[in-house]
Amino acid sequence: MKPTYRAMQISGPGVLELVERAVPQPGVAEVLIRVEACGICGADAADIERTGPATHPPRVPGHEVVGRILAMGPGTPSIWTTGQRVGVGRLGGHCGECVQCRQGRFQLCLNQPVVGATVDGGYAEMMLARSTGLVAIPDTLGAEEAAPILCAGIATFNALKKCGAQAGDTVAILGIGGLGHMALQYARNMGFRVVAIGRGNEKAGDALALGAHVYIDNPREDAAARLKAMGGAQAMVTMIDHAEAISALLPGLAPEGRLVVLNPARSPLHIPPGLLVGGQRSILGSLTGTPYDNEKTLNFSMLANVRPRIETMPLEQAAQAYAKMKSGSAKYRMVLTMDNPR
Amino acid sequence: MKPTYRAMQISGPGVLELVERAVPQPGVAEVLIRVEACGICGADAADIERTGPATHPPRVPGHEVVGRILAMGPGTPSIWTTGQRVGVGRLGGHCGECVQCRQGRFQLCLNQPVVGATVDGGYAEMMLARSTGLVAIPDTLGAEEAAPILCAGIATFNALKKCGAQAGDTVAILGIGGLGHMALQYARNMGFRVVAIGRGNEKAGDALALGAHVYIDNPREDAAARLKAMGGAQAMVTMIDHAEAISALLPGLAPEGRLVVLNPARSPLHIPPGLLVGGQRSILGSLTGTPYDNEKTLNFSMLANVRPRIETMPLEQAAQAYAKMKSGSAKYRMVLTMDNPR
Amino acid sequence: MKPTYRAMQISGPGVLELVERAVPQPGVAEVLIRVEACGICGADAADIERTGPATHPPRVPGHEVVGRILAMGPGTPSIWTTGQRVGVGRLGGHCGECVQCRQGRFQLCLNQPVVGATVDGGYAEMMLARSTGLVAIPDTLGAEEAAPILCAGIATFNALKKCGAQAGDTVAILGIGGLGHMALQYARNMGFRVVAIGRGNEKAGDALALGAHVYIDNPREDAAARLKAMGGAQAMVTMIDHAEAISALLPGLAPEGRLVVLNPARSPLHIPPGLLVGGQRSILGSLTGTPYDNEKTLNFSMLANVRPRIETMPLEQAAQAYAKMKSGSAKYRMVLTMDNPR
Amino acid sequence: MKPTYRAMQISGPGVLELVERAVPQPGVAEVLIRVEACGICGADAADIERTGPATHPPRVPGHEVVGRILAMGPGTPSIWTTGQRVGVGRLGGHCGECVQCRQGRFQLCLNQPVVGATVDGGYAEMMLARSTGLVAIPDTLGAEEAAPILCAGIATFNALKKCGAQAGDTVAILGIGGLGHMALQYARNMGFRVVAIGRGNEKAGDALALGAHVYIDNPREDAAARLKAMGGAQAMVTMIDHAEAISALLPGLAPEGRLVVLNPARSPLHIPPGLLVGGQRSILGSLTGTPYDNEKTLNFSMLANVRPRIETMPLEQAAQAYAKMKSGSAKYRMVLTMDNPR
Repeated sequence: MKPTYRAMQISGPGVLELVERAVPQPGVAEVLIRVEACGICGADAADIERTGPATHPPRVPGHEVVGRILAMGPGTPSIWTTGQRVGVGRLGGHCGECVQCRQGRFQLCLNQPVVGATVDGGYAEMMLARSTGLVAIPDTLGAEEAAPILCAGIATFNALKKCGAQAGDTVAILGIGGLGHMALQYARNMGFRVVAIGRGNEKAGDALALGAHVYIDNPREDAAARLKAMGGAQAMVTMIDHAEAISALLPGLAPEGRLVVLNPARSPLHIPPGLLVGGQRSILGSLTGTPYDNEKTLNFSMLANVRPRIETMPLEQAAQAYAKMKSGSAKYRMVLTMDNPR
Repeated sequence: MKPTYRAMQISGPGVLELVERAVPQPGVAEVLIRVEACGICGADAADIERTGPATHPPRVPGHEVVGRILAMGPGTPSIWTTGQRVGVGRLGGHCGECVQCRQGRFQLCLNQPVVGATVDGGYAEMMLARSTGLVAIPDTLGAEEAAPILCAGIATFNALKKCGAQAGDTVAILGIGGLGHMALQYARNMGFRVVAIGRGNEKAGDALALGAHVYIDNPREDAAARLKAMGGAQAMVTMIDHAEAISALLPGLAPEGRLVVLNPARSPLHIPPGLLVGGQRSILGSLTGTPYDNEKTLNFSMLANVRPRIETMPLEQAAQAYAKMKSGSAKYRMVLTMDNPR
Repeated sequence: MKPTYRAMQISGPGVLELVERAVPQPGVAEVLIRVEACGICGADAADIERTGPATHPPRVPGHEVVGRILAMGPGTPSIWTTGQRVGVGRLGGHCGECVQCRQGRFQLCLNQPVVGATVDGGYAEMMLARSTGLVAIPDTLGAEEAAPILCAGIATFNALKKCGAQAGDTVAILGIGGLGHMALQYARNMGFRVVAIGRGNEKAGDALALGAHVYIDNPREDAAARLKAMGGAQAMVTMIDHAEAISALLPGLAPEGRLVVLNPARSPLHIPPGLLVGGQRSILGSLTGTPYDNEKTLNFSMLANVRPRIETMPLEQAAQAYAKMKSGSAKYRMVLTMDNPR
Repeated sequence: MKPTYRAMQISGPGVLELVERAVPQPGVAEVLIRVEACGICGADAADIERTGPATHPPRVPGHEVVGRILAMGPGTPSIWTTGQRVGVGRLGGHCGECVQCRQGRFQLCLNQPVVGATVDGGYAEMMLARSTGLVAIPDTLGAEEAAPILCAGIATFNALKKCGAQAGDTVAILGIGGLGHMALQYARNMGFRVVAIGRGNEKAGDALALGAHVYIDNPREDAAARLKAMGGAQAMVTMIDHAEAISALLPGLAPEGRLVVLNPARSPLHIPPGLLVGGQRSILGSLTGTPYDNEKTLNFSMLANVRPRIETMPLEQAAQAYAKMKSGSAKYRMVLTMDNPR
């Protein structure tokens, strides 16, 4: 009898189904991971709700994966060992050969699998991964807490590192959810004056506890005006998919300020050129990061004691966990746990 | 009888009128300039066509001004001397006291006159100027040739310095007119692979002669596709006021590429977030520069033998010169000359 | 009878003498400050011990000055008001006209007085200052605590901002005294992994309390080897005047790492080119900063609750306070206080 | 009978010997190159004159290698094809797995062969190379002209890109030989004001013809004073191994200026801290570059028509060619050619 593992696959648009699959052999420079935990990211919706013709075989979502290496294919670098705790984020491992990789810009690799979309992800007890996509994870960090750092953590930490603000500068975080609640913590620990901008006042207390110096309930409080009164934000980091809200905030950006966009949303941003030119402002897209960036994010999270606030559910309840994430009521990251020996 | 000088003032929307005015005394830290030449910039239209209530007194347009210092008010720094050749660009002199000036970002000064708009400009035989706005101009450079460098030159040279491209990288110049024909020359002399993007083919020959390696007739030739075929542009500099054309070009920007916007146009740019995020692209506004930047622009223009292509007309024909600029048929900069002793 | 104030002047090499002077009138764009507190900086020794021909009149040392504006000369910008709390650091106010000022690099001004050296400083009840050298100081910050921020604070905060390290990177602080104890606090609050390097173990406890993650007793513990074992320091900031100690530490710098030098010491650094080339390392000098930088330093100090550890003495005991600073036993900054109405 | 090729190996310190070797099989991800040309670099002396115990087998020097792929080992990426023209520089191919490679900093790879030193180089008719070290070379560029670009070219072009100077700034090139004569051409084509600094006047004419605006015969003409009179150099790039000469030049560096060091020489640089601190100057080591950087260097060389000035000799005369390079009389790069079918 062949050994099997359980996985939660996308059987149709919005439909998650628990199935049993045969355990695969890792190919060249690939590893097989025994999954311990997998975070549920807003971006999973893009995979799960996909409405086109069903992909074959049906895809397993999940790209905040933490587990241990169970087996290694031939050609796997010796920096990895069986039993080691590792993680995988959204980018499934660079090719090392394309024009972007040859420039060392692995996150822009032209041949990189997208975990949970073009290759199977971590809503499962096991998962294959390219060794170039592996992130080393210290044993002292719990799998459930590490998982969301691999996407929500790195995306916001890298964005803050690129935002151009310096210690003491005002940085606004737009959107206080799975990503935003990490951004607040990182921003505070990087020495910024942190402004949390959310919708409604329910999250105000949490935002301040997580590190914000100021909470603005937008649009009720006119965040742009509030920021201007503070001298303007040297940087804004936005993870929301709401072009009008972003445009409305732009006047709150200080001269030479920078807006960093994380969400590759559908609707175009509307940017008045005068605002860019008159104050030499800029807008920058930031795309998660490399496995090494992820290790730096983990290290900083431990150094500064930054952790996601999570709610865990077992793999079998993936549908409920996913629904809670989509409802916006998760505080702040749903994480699936697998009943694996650790 | 009080001494007088002639000036071309805006008597109503679109109406230029030659008048005689009494010669003023320069105030504190101000100088009186005997104007020799003044370029006609596309931005003059914003001043001349102003349709609101008439300003009193009627304003004299022109912000590419070259002349000689005739008199200096008290408190003028000793770096300036009577008889010295000087110029004035769009920014009329920083205050030195505001929050931007105290950071040394003089081009963002909060109390800076806008020459030709909030103070009188250079369509005149004489002009007052704040000494902080003065640009030293070498005697070896003709006044007519120097004038357009003070706005069309500095705007494009500074934009190219901020565009993030390195020697050998592909830089696209969008709009081949008064600014663009300077940008092509600067870009070529900075070591870029220069792509000129214009409308129609009449300017193709000029563009190549001015320094472009490639000319693209957009949209007939689908500039974005052409750029992609070349590997993408590491930078684009655009001076046009045409949001759709700019948006259409964005897919031609290489990963990590930067779009630099010079024109504070009315209509908002439409920017797909996915394009920014997926390739970590950015958009930056660039605002002319300081008098020191202008001196660096002049120095580079002489070092690299960059000159505007100009057509001169006497001050009295300012209306005709302005009309020619507006018609788009100027090749490439109209410059007014004053019948002053030099 | 003319009003007078008391000042501690340098009557000869190493000799401080309390004298009574007539209160001066502030000149153009100058202010008269009623001094409340003045820190004693290691750099004061260069002024006080000067062995050349005596300057006439004898100079008053001190360049960490906090007080209130008592009178303003003509032409003082309206951003300053009588009674306002202000400070003055080492740089006495830029000229606004030289080639460096016209580039907005005020700290490199070619005509800038050096407070306590070329103009009288703050070991006195009153002091004249150029308005361009004034730093606005919030009333909520005590004068004694603010004073050391104006030199020890800004020098280290600015150096850390230029050191190239990012949040999570290892930054070593070499020299745990007046400057170093500020650097530790700033570095910790900027998100760095902070390594304090001192001589002997007496300061180890303080260093850890101030923010260091690790303390190294150099050379007993071979700091370079310790740093290498940690993966190398991405940046080192050194304020010591000991070329051999600095050279010995260089191998502890990570590839692409940067050494920032604050102390314009006499003896040349010895730098092996192979160390620079092989790892693309760099060395950078950092020179205090502008009044605006000083205000940013104060703001960050309040935001992150960074304060100097001070010991105060009245003006009359300046000689004792200075001697204690020189002995190296101050913990960590001596501050003179003036018996002025506040 | 096994096929053989001829190689010039180092039989003892300073001794080159022509030998016949068996043609090897390329290993995993390796290629066999039929060499067409190999430049002789100053750094070859470090390999050829090595005085320690002889390496076994004796090493073949040469790291400016151009040829065609003759055979490819298993696992060679498909971006390479048999018959393709390729080159190899000093760095023999990164491992892709070490901590530097995972950051995309391939030139700092910890496991990288040094061509001509730890692996055999290009003074031979054939050579093995790691595929990660391969540089694609356009067929339109002659092998003899391409070869010196792979080390002398990239080293200087990359240094100039990192030197911090902008178009119009003054850049001094110290040392007008194999590297310097490339640096002059690149610097001129990047828009810098180029100052060549050499010893004696024999090279003055060449330097000006290659692109220098000014030639200084140092120390006869006191280069530091000459540079200061020009306003200081924003950047200096030095390839010489002469610590005193470099130190003597430092005062010619403008405020905020940067010295870029290319030569990992033995004797330490002596750097006065005051010079660094007072003007916020910096010193940076630059280490050749990656294969992709080399392709960018080749592309820019073709774009700007930059070529080495070479003198060719057949492989058999390697000892004479090497001696001529060492004598300093080469103008400016010796290149060995192989009698291979092309």
